Amino acid sequence: MKQIHVVESVLKASAAAAGENRRLMDEAGLLAINLMSAPGSGKTTLLETTIPALGPGCPCAVLVGDLQTTRDAERLGPLAVETVQINTGKGCHLTPGQVAEGLRCLDLSRFAFLFIENVGNMVCPAAFDLGEHLRVVLLSVPEGDDKVAKYPTLFQKADAVLLTKVDLLDILDFDISRVRDDLSRLNTRAPFMEISSKRGDGLDRWLTWLKDQRQARSPGQEPTAKS
Amino acid sequence: MKQIHVVESVLKASAAAAGENRRLMDEAGLLAINLMSAPGSGKTTLLETTIPALGPGCPCAVLVGDLQTTRDAERLGPLAVETVQINTGKGCHLTPGQVAEGLRCLDLSRFAFLFIENVGNMVCPAAFDLGEHLRVVLLSVPEGDDKVAKYPTLFQKADAVLLTKVDLLDILDFDISRVRDDLSRLNTRAPFMEISSKRGDGLDRWLTWLKDQRQARSPGQEPTAKS
Repeated sequence: MKQIHVVESVLKASAAAAGENRRLMDEAGLLAINLMSAPGSGKTTLLETTIPALGPGCPCAVLVGDLQTTRDAERLGPLAVETVQINTGKGCHLTPGQVAEGLRCLDLSRFAFLFIENVGNMVCPAAFDLGEHLRVVLLSVPEGDDKVAKYPTLFQKADAVLLTKVDLLDILDFDISRVRDDLSRLNTRAPFMEISSKRGDGLDRWLTWLKDQRQARSPGQEPTAKS
Repeated sequence: MKQIHVVESVLKASAAAAGENRRLMDEAGLLAINLMSAPGSGKTTLLETTIPALGPGCPCAVLVGDLQTTRDAERLGPLAVETVQINTGKGCHLTPGQVAEGLRCLDLSRFAFLFIENVGNMVCPAAFDLGEHLRVVLLSVPEGDDKVAKYPTLFQKADAVLLTKVDLLDILDFDISRVRDDLSRLNTRAPFMEISSKRGDGLDRWLTWLKDQRQARSPGQEPTAKS
């Protein structure tokens, strides 16, 4: 029984930390989005396109989780958004405690959106509530059209699914109808958007969705202290 | 202290199971290769090319780990190799115990090679010895040239690194020298092979390497009971 108690208390602490993160972000009128995908699906590239397109009326902050390196934070630096790099060492996902530490580095009232770029991994991040409001899952065309069925938990819990790198559909063997079918069995709630950050496909729909989601949660609330 | 003892005994049991797997495979003169990569890097496609090319003189068996579905086993079925699909449920990597169960389904003396296709994940599989003789890590061009530095543990422990989908080098922005540089800081032992399963690049070198590795470990030993 000892072992079970230990596990229970770890889970309770994790849920409590996630709840506290959400409370702080709700208070600040911030919409927090947990971006999850395999390595190399284009999470950072999507942010490089999304953040400038949202414009100065929607200031963004980013928490980036990686085992090692600060390369993603360096890529996002030139966008003049506040970026906190969290190195997880051997950790295969971000934890709510790590996100709480990241939040302490930010003046939350300044931002409309917080993007949490999780560790590239289609399994473990799905199991952890970080306190985010929405989960966005990316699947890139080169990964193959069988991934929704193979990693169901991730897609089941998604609030939106983005098929990225659709500019490669012309040259790779990829059946979108297979992805749509698999998704329809797991999750009928999440919109499915076809995106190319490179060519611009689907970005208008994605940006509209983001703004609508924030509007629905924090009607009329604007970031209070722009600097 | 209680908790630490629990963890220690789990680790000991895991190491013991891996050791027993290795002993059984050594006894059978089988070379076991643990294939690890992100989802969609081309592990199954590589096997679809490799197994027929090795030919009837080198009979192969495959253990395939996936959270859900038997799609990889179905893909490998037509190659007339013995394939065991292991569904890990929510498990983010194969365990030595699961591999032991898979081995019990096979007459090991019939095979020259056992390929263990791990769960698509660049983090967790790296931490678990399954009893394999060699670890082969795949990185596909669409994942990006920053992944060696971002997932160092996986590459550090590799006995060979395969850059797959090199047919996409012409159209994607990917700097091979960056990968080579990052790798040279982590692992100078593993050969680095540029592969396209689709176009055939690098397959001769890969097949020669596989046969040399088996020869070095089981000189003169042939599978005993072909059926």
